[in-house]
Amino acid sequence: MADRKMDIIRALKEAGKEPISGEELGEQLGISRTMVWKYIKNLEEDGYVIESSPGSGYTLVSAPDKLYPSEISIGLDTSIMGKEVHYFETLDSTNDLAKKMGPKAEEGTVVIAETQESGRGRKGDHWVSPKGGIWLSVILKPGILPAHAPRLTLMAGVAVANTMRQFGIDASIKWPNDIVIGEKKVCGILTEMDAEADHIGFVVIGIGINANVSVEELPEEFRGSSTSLSSVIGESINRAEFVRDLLRSLESEYMRFKIDGFDKILDDWTSLSNTIGRQVDVITPHKIVSGKAVGVTPDGALVVEDEEGLHEVMAGRCIYK
Amino acid sequence: MADRKMDIIRALKEAGKEPISGEELGEQLGISRTMVWKYIKNLEEDGYVIESSPGSGYTLVSAPDKLYPSEISIGLDTSIMGKEVHYFETLDSTNDLAKKMGPKAEEGTVVIAETQESGRGRKGDHWVSPKGGIWLSVILKPGILPAHAPRLTLMAGVAVANTMRQFGIDASIKWPNDIVIGEKKVCGILTEMDAEADHIGFVVIGIGINANVSVEELPEEFRGSSTSLSSVIGESINRAEFVRDLLRSLESEYMRFKIDGFDKILDDWTSLSNTIGRQVDVITPHKIVSGKAVGVTPDGALVVEDEEGLHEVMAGRCIYK
Repeated sequence: MADRKMDIIRALKEAGKEPISGEELGEQLGISRTMVWKYIKNLEEDGYVIESSPGSGYTLVSAPDKLYPSEISIGLDTSIMGKEVHYFETLDSTNDLAKKMGPKAEEGTVVIAETQESGRGRKGDHWVSPKGGIWLSVILKPGILPAHAPRLTLMAGVAVANTMRQFGIDASIKWPNDIVIGEKKVCGILTEMDAEADHIGFVVIGIGINANVSVEELPEEFRGSSTSLSSVIGESINRAEFVRDLLRSLESEYMRFKIDGFDKILDDWTSLSNTIGRQVDVITPHKIVSGKAVGVTPDGALVVEDEEGLHEVMAGRCIYK
Repeated sequence: MADRKMDIIRALKEAGKEPISGEELGEQLGISRTMVWKYIKNLEEDGYVIESSPGSGYTLVSAPDKLYPSEISIGLDTSIMGKEVHYFETLDSTNDLAKKMGPKAEEGTVVIAETQESGRGRKGDHWVSPKGGIWLSVILKPGILPAHAPRLTLMAGVAVANTMRQFGIDASIKWPNDIVIGEKKVCGILTEMDAEADHIGFVVIGIGINANVSVEELPEEFRGSSTSLSSVIGESINRAEFVRDLLRSLESEYMRFKIDGFDKILDDWTSLSNTIGRQVDVITPHKIVSGKAVGVTPDGALVVEDEEGLHEVMAGRCIYK
């Protein structure tokens, strides 16, 4: 069903402003004109505006602002990322569903939702996910050690920041997993895994982006430290186009990760980061490490320099001074 | 219901050979004599043999050879391990259920099954789990980095080998996660985790022991390389007692892990291991490392020495030459 609808959307998009008759659509898809008409009605219910001129045919006037698989997949030229997209109006958490699907899912499978009811940030923090944002999870099966999982967080950070820069937005990465514009957070990345002690079964990379979200929609305590793509550029972005570019970017970084290793991604991360060179407090469960952030190790640890020397911090919350 | 039954078993066990009347049992438990009688019938259905002498009361004659929570919990003096035991006649896999329970489970929760239909070994290998074995999983929430998860496998190996030695069985550890008697495998340990990139949510340690299992019950291809506790000592072991000792041993190792760190456990592992000092081939996904096993790193890697020097192998299958 979903595939037929996608085929009709694809045919309408290819036809552009030229009307395409129900008969022709039916022939292309191997279904009757009546079935075509039913699918067209169904697409209209989904929010597509389709002009129907008696005698000439159907024309796509506009697509809804939804991250439907059809909107993401048509024009997506990746080999693995997003070849399978599972779409939901609302979900508890895209990461939770992706983790359930993980064992049997193909690598690159994407779970996407217009809103999340119980979106999660790191260590179970609540993540607010209103309409207009981009809330998605990607399943990967990288065949690496659990110890190397932080590399995938850094890799995803590079992919997200680069995608935003392609949209003309001056995004940076704040260690370990926030994308910021200026000092304000626009995206969080939550990497989770299902692993044996020495072998990752699958990884779920959750990416949450305040895309077309008004900062006023966020809870008061986050408003001062958060921003969104639409508020920075002054208009809504095309979310489907953004997701396509993001999936392309993720795929090219992931291929680089698998083929060339992590060094070059780490270099890119370092130059995209606004953490390196800053005075920071890193709050860990056991202590606060204060000093100058001077680098990141291949295991994802932040290297902080103080009078005593260099300290590697594997995990913590980083505060700029 | 389960708790009431456990209370009755406990009272019968405490009374020993002295009959205890239905009235007295009812008073102890705050239920009617008729309810006591119903629970007694229910326990008999579970396989308990309970003598009922009119006028004097009930005497426990024998308990079934089942790993019921009542059989494990009565006399178990641990603080966390096995405080909660979930018992099943059969399960697909105790690790799979424990992973489902993990997010909300108390640390130390145990899942146990008399047989597993789809028991798993490392990397999804099938693990044959006939009746008479000990197939259990323990949920832990150690608050460590994913990179340190292999330490828990080594820790569990120490606990299992020590428990077998308490039963007079000369068990050793074969890197990374097999317990062997002589050269033959008697137990496998499968450590799995649900983790963020830099933070373990929970760990499931699956322990599968050929306890009272005849080697003939195993598939032909494993018979030559496998053994069981009962075939080594020539009689059945008391599985419930073994599980209690194992949970005690796991708890004391885990406390040592949390309080004193990993060094002493690693020392114990090394002296319990029959791998160190041996000529080995370690088969990894990418290569075979051949040489003399000379040690294990705190991250669980086997250190193999050849003419070129020392090599650390994080994961692989180890074959003795």
